[in-house]
Amino acid sequence: MRIEVAFTVEEAVRADLQGATALVVDVVRATTTLIAALHAGAAAICPAASNEDAIKLLQSLGRDDTLLAGERRGLRIEGYHLGNSPSEFTRERVAGKRIIMNTTNGTRALLAAESAERVLAAAFVNLSATARVASGASRVVVVCAGRSDRFALDDAVCAGGLVGRLREFAGGAVELADGARAALELALTHTPNSDFLATTESGRELAGVGLAGDLALCAMTDVTELVPEMRDRVLRSGPRRGA
Amino acid sequence: MRIEVAFTVEEAVRADLQGATALVVDVVRATTTLIAALHAGAAAICPAASNEDAIKLLQSLGRDDTLLAGERRGLRIEGYHLGNSPSEFTRERVAGKRIIMNTTNGTRALLAAESAERVLAAAFVNLSATARVASGASRVVVVCAGRSDRFALDDAVCAGGLVGRLREFAGGAVELADGARAALELALTHTPNSDFLATTESGRELAGVGLAGDLALCAMTDVTELVPEMRDRVLRSGPRRGA
Repeated sequence: MRIEVAFTVEEAVRADLQGATALVVDVVRATTTLIAALHAGAAAICPAASNEDAIKLLQSLGRDDTLLAGERRGLRIEGYHLGNSPSEFTRERVAGKRIIMNTTNGTRALLAAESAERVLAAAFVNLSATARVASGASRVVVVCAGRSDRFALDDAVCAGGLVGRLREFAGGAVELADGARAALELALTHTPNSDFLATTESGRELAGVGLAGDLALCAMTDVTELVPEMRDRVLRSGPRRGA
Repeated sequence: MRIEVAFTVEEAVRADLQGATALVVDVVRATTTLIAALHAGAAAICPAASNEDAIKLLQSLGRDDTLLAGERRGLRIEGYHLGNSPSEFTRERVAGKRIIMNTTNGTRALLAAESAERVLAAAFVNLSATARVASGASRVVVVCAGRSDRFALDDAVCAGGLVGRLREFAGGAVELADGARAALELALTHTPNSDFLATTESGRELAGVGLAGDLALCAMTDVTELVPEMRDRVLRSGPRRGA
């Protein structure tokens, strides 16, 4: 297995994902939140690249059983049903619903990964489960959402956690590209807890809009076996362990 | 001082370099080589974005006292006077000459940094000297050339070395962006010697074309006080220590 890490969406585009398994990571908060939503029983997540796309999707899917979720500068977009806090996506709110999701970096990363053979959504909450599902691939590219096409330390440390577990679970020899080596080293330097997340630029931005409480949820590690998989631009609860 | 690191040229473009001091790093080998060239007495280095640009530059500068240097896939471009090995740029070959330089990643990074207030060229060979020259800036962005817009570990570790020394030399408080924190941590993990460089993707590619010998020159740290500065797309020996 060859493992690569793209620290920005632009880097992922350069990586040429054809034939690869892409693990899309936006710890604070898009992938954490969409995993939470599916865990709470949401039927599907549809990433939208923009508000326009989100509204179009809502019109084509129909308003029944469909919710709009998303943020700009961390806060819920006006007129949307939900923001981007994992805590909002309770069973009561989302069970059985399709959710159209429009966030600054995460949904863009998911859509940019579309050309990969498989696209899985990962965060600390499903770290080991994701690595187990991807462990049979010949090439894995971790796609960090980053922050407006800049490096984000929270995503890089999560990517490194995935690299470490992939190396553990993969059967044969594992080759690490430069980015994967760096991510692994960063993961060994940092303990993924809310104190760490609070020191990152994403964490500080979130605290700045009064949402620091989300960081504890984003830091929880291996609390679910759920691994969302995207097909035709729709994410659903994917294969469980051993599948 | 705020310190940022862009791990790819695309990230540097996103960073908006206006008003910043950009430290452009392409350890293996463009910035190492151009520092060696100026150290050996070259009058000036003119980065060219392509072979076409290089030929145009040669025509406008005149063939007297002008040399073409550059590589594709590590090897000297046909018809060029010099390749991209620091060892080629001896006093006998380059003293008093203008050198047009056309490399895969390094010259592109230099040209992408053009919008910065100051553009300095850095590598391990002039690490401390560069940090001293930049230590008065309010915002420093280290621009890693990377490899075809992907992360390169050699450049990242050199960037981290610059971050560490900048933190040491800067007078006031220093704020590290996520990328600068990561680079610093990677620099603390790796000793910049030729054994380390040989493990990176850039190092392995160079070894693959029989040029592993260059890595020892690229790994030499703090062997010159020369800090090239680019103005109007021309790099010259810039300020020495304390300037």
